[in-house]
Amino acid sequence: MGVTTKTGSGAGKGFAIGVDYGTNSVRALVVDVSNGREIASSVFEFPSGEAGILLDKRDPNLARQHPKDYLDGFDASVRGAVKQAKKVRGFSVDRVVGIGIDATGSTPIPVDKNGTALAMLPGFKKDLAAHVWLWKDHTSHAEAAEITRKAAKVKDQYLDKCGGIYSSEWYWSKILHCKRTSPKVFKAAYGWVEQADFIPGYATGNMAPDTMVRGICAAGHKGLYHEKWGGLPSKRFLKSLDPDGGDGGGLVDLRDRYAMPARSSDQRAGGLCEAVAKKVGLPVGIPVAVGLIDAHAGAVGAGVKPGTLVKAMGTSTCDMMVEPMGSGLQDIPGLCGIVPGSILPGMFGLEAGQSAVGDIFNWFVGQLTPGQYGTGGEAHVALTKEAAKLKPGASGLVALDWNNGNRTVLVDPLLTGLIVGQTLHTSAAEVYRALVEATAFGALAIINRLEEYDVPVKQVINCGGIAEKNPMVMQIYADVCNRPMKISRSSQTCALGAAIFGAVVGGAYKTTEAAQKKMTGVKAKVYKPIRANVRVYAELFKVYMQLHDAFGDARKNAGEMSSIMKALIEIRNEARGGGS
Amino acid sequence: MGVTTKTGSGAGKGFAIGVDYGTNSVRALVVDVSNGREIASSVFEFPSGEAGILLDKRDPNLARQHPKDYLDGFDASVRGAVKQAKKVRGFSVDRVVGIGIDATGSTPIPVDKNGTALAMLPGFKKDLAAHVWLWKDHTSHAEAAEITRKAAKVKDQYLDKCGGIYSSEWYWSKILHCKRTSPKVFKAAYGWVEQADFIPGYATGNMAPDTMVRGICAAGHKGLYHEKWGGLPSKRFLKSLDPDGGDGGGLVDLRDRYAMPARSSDQRAGGLCEAVAKKVGLPVGIPVAVGLIDAHAGAVGAGVKPGTLVKAMGTSTCDMMVEPMGSGLQDIPGLCGIVPGSILPGMFGLEAGQSAVGDIFNWFVGQLTPGQYGTGGEAHVALTKEAAKLKPGASGLVALDWNNGNRTVLVDPLLTGLIVGQTLHTSAAEVYRALVEATAFGALAIINRLEEYDVPVKQVINCGGIAEKNPMVMQIYADVCNRPMKISRSSQTCALGAAIFGAVVGGAYKTTEAAQKKMTGVKAKVYKPIRANVRVYAELFKVYMQLHDAFGDARKNAGEMSSIMKALIEIRNEARGGGS
Repeated sequence: MGVTTKTGSGAGKGFAIGVDYGTNSVRALVVDVSNGREIASSVFEFPSGEAGILLDKRDPNLARQHPKDYLDGFDASVRGAVKQAKKVRGFSVDRVVGIGIDATGSTPIPVDKNGTALAMLPGFKKDLAAHVWLWKDHTSHAEAAEITRKAAKVKDQYLDKCGGIYSSEWYWSKILHCKRTSPKVFKAAYGWVEQADFIPGYATGNMAPDTMVRGICAAGHKGLYHEKWGGLPSKRFLKSLDPDGGDGGGLVDLRDRYAMPARSSDQRAGGLCEAVAKKVGLPVGIPVAVGLIDAHAGAVGAGVKPGTLVKAMGTSTCDMMVEPMGSGLQDIPGLCGIVPGSILPGMFGLEAGQSAVGDIFNWFVGQLTPGQYGTGGEAHVALTKEAAKLKPGASGLVALDWNNGNRTVLVDPLLTGLIVGQTLHTSAAEVYRALVEATAFGALAIINRLEEYDVPVKQVINCGGIAEKNPMVMQIYADVCNRPMKISRSSQTCALGAAIFGAVVGGAYKTTEAAQKKMTGVKAKVYKPIRANVRVYAELFKVYMQLHDAFGDARKNAGEMSSIMKALIEIRNEARGGGS
Repeated sequence: MGVTTKTGSGAGKGFAIGVDYGTNSVRALVVDVSNGREIASSVFEFPSGEAGILLDKRDPNLARQHPKDYLDGFDASVRGAVKQAKKVRGFSVDRVVGIGIDATGSTPIPVDKNGTALAMLPGFKKDLAAHVWLWKDHTSHAEAAEITRKAAKVKDQYLDKCGGIYSSEWYWSKILHCKRTSPKVFKAAYGWVEQADFIPGYATGNMAPDTMVRGICAAGHKGLYHEKWGGLPSKRFLKSLDPDGGDGGGLVDLRDRYAMPARSSDQRAGGLCEAVAKKVGLPVGIPVAVGLIDAHAGAVGAGVKPGTLVKAMGTSTCDMMVEPMGSGLQDIPGLCGIVPGSILPGMFGLEAGQSAVGDIFNWFVGQLTPGQYGTGGEAHVALTKEAAKLKPGASGLVALDWNNGNRTVLVDPLLTGLIVGQTLHTSAAEVYRALVEATAFGALAIINRLEEYDVPVKQVINCGGIAEKNPMVMQIYADVCNRPMKISRSSQTCALGAAIFGAVVGGAYKTTEAAQKKMTGVKAKVYKPIRANVRVYAELFKVYMQLHDAFGDARKNAGEMSSIMKALIEIRNEARGGGS
């Protein structure tokens, strides 16, 4: 590709660029590698669909994106950030040592032999199955259940590393669902590429599925990839899901076209290719790191290390920890993933999370908030102001935070929300606070699960919009979890984490930990637990866990409550799918 | 009292007046007894307190009224209605055959030896305990629990006729609470008179507690009065609640000053006395019927008969049936009351109900409805319009209708609301519909309970504002209950029912049933069950009953769910009562 390899401007100096793909937009951030100072950034909002998401009215589970938004977004955001950085003293484009990239996941994209996304080809432009299958697409729950069932039967114990249950949000569920419901798309797809690999492929000019560099993070957490069994799941297992193949028409063929091994993000995916370099205004050949999932990059940018839980709080949360290899870490049931090198190279990356946090608050503001509170952000502020005055327990409400299913502990997308305790006086602010508390209870359930399996949580660092903007939420989390809540210094931890990997592949630091030490930190303000609140929340958490176990965990409780949410979903699906 | 007894103008002819006391106002209605035509009416809003209710900021359970409002209201409303009727061809005051009166209950009033309400005497004008204890006053919950506990231990089985639980809304709870918290008022009260007896006493000039005529309806449903044990509860039982007395200072003394037997409303309380006749512009001596509770009068006005369930649907509902004596009717657990003659003379009157129906919809509109729907009545219309488009089951939601506790089947005020099935797309209209459906499921639970105890429900007649104004609600009730829903022809069923008793005591008809046949009817529009909806609602009702039994019925299910609502109420009370 005719690139000159750049080696960076010397130890701990120069600038790195982090490119962070979120659900609705992409952000490029230019960072001073000597101290983590963020000197410039630029955001590109995805133009397609609703805030970048393609929906289908008939199926609330469907969430797709347009791949072109990603490519346009890379060009525009990086170009914009570089342009802005040029105004800052000391910056010049040849002092950019490297680029790191993070993206949502599991967000697989069907591509042709050249790596071109099918949705960009004639004949597929209107076919939603040919577009990007966004992480929060839940159309594939039946396939997820099948994979879980079949994986449980094979000796490889694929599921031990991903909490015992394969998710409808993940790679193979989505591909299998496509095979069964859109065979034309499946047939046309030479490969399926995670968004976190698709973008580095684009930046380095190496997009073909069988040559592109794959990241261990998405592969390990979402694709059942593990060194222990030689990479992707065995052909025998894939055949058990889909008997086709060998001729290019089955799941097994995808395995053949997948360049192993998958790598950690302190490694180079390649150098910035000429075509893209020109578009973004950077020199050709700048090292581009292997991509990883946004939350994992965020953990790095927030300063994750053994004993530190990083909570990335946005529309959903991702809860991340690392454990040194050789620490005797067990498999942890209900944890989304345990993958060597997925966060910090050389350590196990542990990923947990809540399927909806900010999304629940946004839902409440969008659908159930009276006019007097205003709308959107204004309503969040007004509701928070009123809710902050309420004492813990005073509303008599407890909610389950499952409006988008449960990702960790129960790992079940077919769960739904619940709220109990309403009277004729229950106010919007009380419900809002109960929803915030529900997400805090969900957070504590995750911490408890980690500690039950000997992963001590000594420190919690929060990052993301909610952590920065809403002191009430943070205080409730401190009180519910009975732990101080710290906030990451950077408000762009994902982009910063990506930039850290840019700095590492650019040679500015020898290790990711060394880069973290210089480039990350926490804010002075720490939310400390208030004793009286801790006591009340301990009582309310008992109620939360009673509901959690009864409605969520069919295995522990043979009680009939555990069938209710599924029965309602079945009735709902039939009602929506049925005749007039 | 120097009155001439009137005997009415002949069989099935003339006019009757029904006087209906509601919570905020009193209405007088002039009815043509030959066909039930309502020719004139007049409403008097109670001027005291907030919409007629005296409140105490420190105690949300307190709800009192001023007795003078009732007397002024009788005069003004009857005078107004008569004045209006005079403009109608064929009406003249000497063609008025009788007056019937209904009132709220249990709404006891402390009075002196002459029957003058204490609140109208010097020294008591500012004492809320000396005022009327309105039906919805809940200050006496501790006494209610004590009466329930003690009644359960005695052989008389007082509670078998009132669902097994004595309510804080009822006669003896309130009097006992007054004795314990306002001994001065208790001592000054020669008697305690139900509002439904107080007004006929006023109209007939016979107000003294030991001579006035008492109605079986309030006495039987609220005062533990039953022929089986000789009227009011035994002195021994009353002594167990209050050891004082014999000297005029205890509960037992009230029993001595109570003129038994209590009577049904086809009997005369007396003739219209001179003083009142003059004020209202009617001839002296017009027969006045024994008073009864508003909902029971409403059942009569809606055409109740064996096999017909009358549902009075307002902020709460009252569900009423009658069963012929000698039909072998058993006690029905969870039913508010079974009293001979309380609705139709010579039949058992059965009273059930839901603690909140319209109140739940109003709560949702007041607290959780976005601005785009408007407010108040406008919001109900807009939400209904959208909710009516939804298919049964399509929201995936099920709710419990317990925001104000559960009055029938569970008889437990310490239950609260619950909603399950929310996603990130759940809309206000979906929640609104789910709340309507919840009340319909609650209605079906009552019907099922009646039928389980061999009281067949062959026809349902609805009355009240919701039944008249909201076709969606009625269609959902038809679909959920799988029964046609009829609507009472009159929109003033309570006042019409009272007028029917006026016609009977005035001699226009020999029996209440004969009067009903001529004076009541249903509207042409009948809501018929839609087969496809019935099928879906049968599934959803199963879910409702799972939740109902698990969260509500500690007796059937030893499961921990049944403790959750009570635990939350305890935590709430502590949080609200505790220090900052």
